[in-house]
Amino acid sequence: MTDRIKEFREKREALNAKIFERENINIKRFFGIDSAVYREGALSPKVKELLGLVASTVLRCDDCITYHLIRCAEEGVTGPEMDEAMSVALIVGGSITIPHLRRAYDLWSELKAEK
Amino acid sequence: MTDRIKEFREKREALNAKIFERENINIKRFFGIDSAVYREGALSPKVKELLGLVASTVLRCDDCITYHLIRCAEEGVTGPEMDEAMSVALIVGGSITIPHLRRAYDLWSELKAEK
Amino acid sequence: MTDRIKEFREKREALNAKIFERENINIKRFFGIDSAVYREGALSPKVKELLGLVASTVLRCDDCITYHLIRCAEEGVTGPEMDEAMSVALIVGGSITIPHLRRAYDLWSELKAEK
Amino acid sequence: MTDRIKEFREKREALNAKIFERENINIKRFFGIDSAVYREGALSPKVKELLGLVASTVLRCDDCITYHLIRCAEEGVTGPEMDEAMSVALIVGGSITIPHLRRAYDLWSELKAEK
Amino acid sequence: MTDRIKEFREKREALNAKIFERENINIKRFFGIDSAVYREGALSPKVKELLGLVASTVLRCDDCITYHLIRCAEEGVTGPEMDEAMSVALIVGGSITIPHLRRAYDLWSELKAEK
Amino acid sequence: MTDRIKEFREKREALNAKIFERENINIKRFFGIDSAVYREGALSPKVKELLGLVASTVLRCDDCITYHLIRCAEEGVTGPEMDEAMSVALIVGGSITIPHLRRAYDLWSELKAEK
Repeated sequence: MTDRIKEFREKREALNAKIFERENINIKRFFGIDSAVYREGALSPKVKELLGLVASTVLRCDDCITYHLIRCAEEGVTGPEMDEAMSVALIVGGSITIPHLRRAYDLWSELKAEK
Repeated sequence: MTDRIKEFREKREALNAKIFERENINIKRFFGIDSAVYREGALSPKVKELLGLVASTVLRCDDCITYHLIRCAEEGVTGPEMDEAMSVALIVGGSITIPHLRRAYDLWSELKAEK
Repeated sequence: MTDRIKEFREKREALNAKIFERENINIKRFFGIDSAVYREGALSPKVKELLGLVASTVLRCDDCITYHLIRCAEEGVTGPEMDEAMSVALIVGGSITIPHLRRAYDLWSELKAEK
Repeated sequence: MTDRIKEFREKREALNAKIFERENINIKRFFGIDSAVYREGALSPKVKELLGLVASTVLRCDDCITYHLIRCAEEGVTGPEMDEAMSVALIVGGSITIPHLRRAYDLWSELKAEK
Repeated sequence: MTDRIKEFREKREALNAKIFERENINIKRFFGIDSAVYREGALSPKVKELLGLVASTVLRCDDCITYHLIRCAEEGVTGPEMDEAMSVALIVGGSITIPHLRRAYDLWSELKAEK
Repeated sequence: MTDRIKEFREKREALNAKIFERENINIKRFFGIDSAVYREGALSPKVKELLGLVASTVLRCDDCITYHLIRCAEEGVTGPEMDEAMSVALIVGGSITIPHLRRAYDLWSELKAEK
């Protein structure tokens, strides 16, 4: 795990903790479903992470893209699979997604170099 | 093919024709890539149509959802697979996507009854 | 209740039924939280419906605006309160929200005439 | 003026009237600026209407596209100019804008046939 | 006032000054309405700031969230009220808002510690 | 060219290179059209860059705004023309665009000082 990915995860956990300590039941339940929808089911976690990655890209959220890209790498998504998912996101979402694609590919090269 | 789906396709073709008769080279090239990204490759057309469906749902475009839902049915997406893709879209995109989910499930039941 | 509002409710219920009959646990749980967040708590249902109305307006979803507007009327929101909530939505969301404001005010005049 | 365009204008005026009769000062002032920004200045009304058209297309609002398209025709925008503005919108906003492009070109052919 | 909040305010004022020195009448008038819509009226400034907070969260703008969160704290919004407003934003806007919720709660804990 | 603009360009080129080395044909073709739509045609590059600037502002993408602002300066867009384009973007997109306007004007003053 590279430094950047480690920092991303630690910051994410620390900030999630600030949300959870508020103990709001509806926010907690939302986080519960948010984990559940990516679990093994009729569709594999790999396909679901690709769905999350494309949704995050067309909605243009860097933190969400980072998270799903790390998960995609963990689920064994290959370079060409990542390229094809990203080309769908690019065509659907347009050139406004390009700055996010740039950062996604930068992280992806880091995730692959790591192995 | 039900009447609603037939009408959707005919209207879509008729309006596409109005765009193409303008003969703008960049718009034509865009439509070319738009077809190409969903073709067989490292990812299957089925997975790509699911990516298109989820992207269309979080961006909340009924015509795009209708198109990808018809294609998903053609590619053999099952009910539970559709449910899981839609639950990812719902969690990522929030309750603002619910009116689109309603119409998507209405069309889905029609697509399945048709068979 | 006017015809338009009655039809809106009936169609909404009929389409929700198509979603629920799929029996997807995560979608069901999402709908559960979606009801819960608008209930009496530290903030009143009236304030929460205004929050839902403004969120729906800046995200430009007519069905969501219709739903929250009906609920606002039920919670006793007055004309000037509606105007001020809408002026916040208009300033935050810009002129792209105006077509939705037009339809919202049209429905509002119907909701008020009804009483 | 074709029937469709006439109806669009009449409905728009009727609904605007419902907003104005509320006499909310901030909403009124917003509508005042909304007219002012498209007037002759350092940029011509023609260029400003093209800006409004492209902004409306990437934000995917059919009523706003219809309005600016009618104004573009009035300002003498030519077919090739419309095509190039639309190709910028399509590239920036992606395939999710295509259903709006279809309707825009359908209206455009009507606006041009009318002359 | 913590350093982070002080810096946010100073930077905001410095950049606003760059906009105002351009002396564009329509931009100035827009800023005028933008202040006016949050003032005491049929709805209290507290409710209006909550409306601004939720609108900013579903539209996912960190600077706007920071501004309205500071104003909410000034207007006496309590922790549970903040939680309920945020849970409405989370449900309406979906998991794509979570990175913004994380940063909002981080700032909120700072705003509350300060007192 | 100021340091900030130089760094923006270098980073942009370096990250584009990471995308291009993947050699995905559809992504490459998309980048080709993305260059082509801003070239001289029925509309001038100046008008097209203004279209790109306004589209980027209402969609709220800082990197895209930076790029088109630099190009606008190169195409000879004057201060008042920039103000009027920005006032259209502000009215269409609402106050949620203001943080981006602040950064755009900050960069603009740097682009103009440079000359």
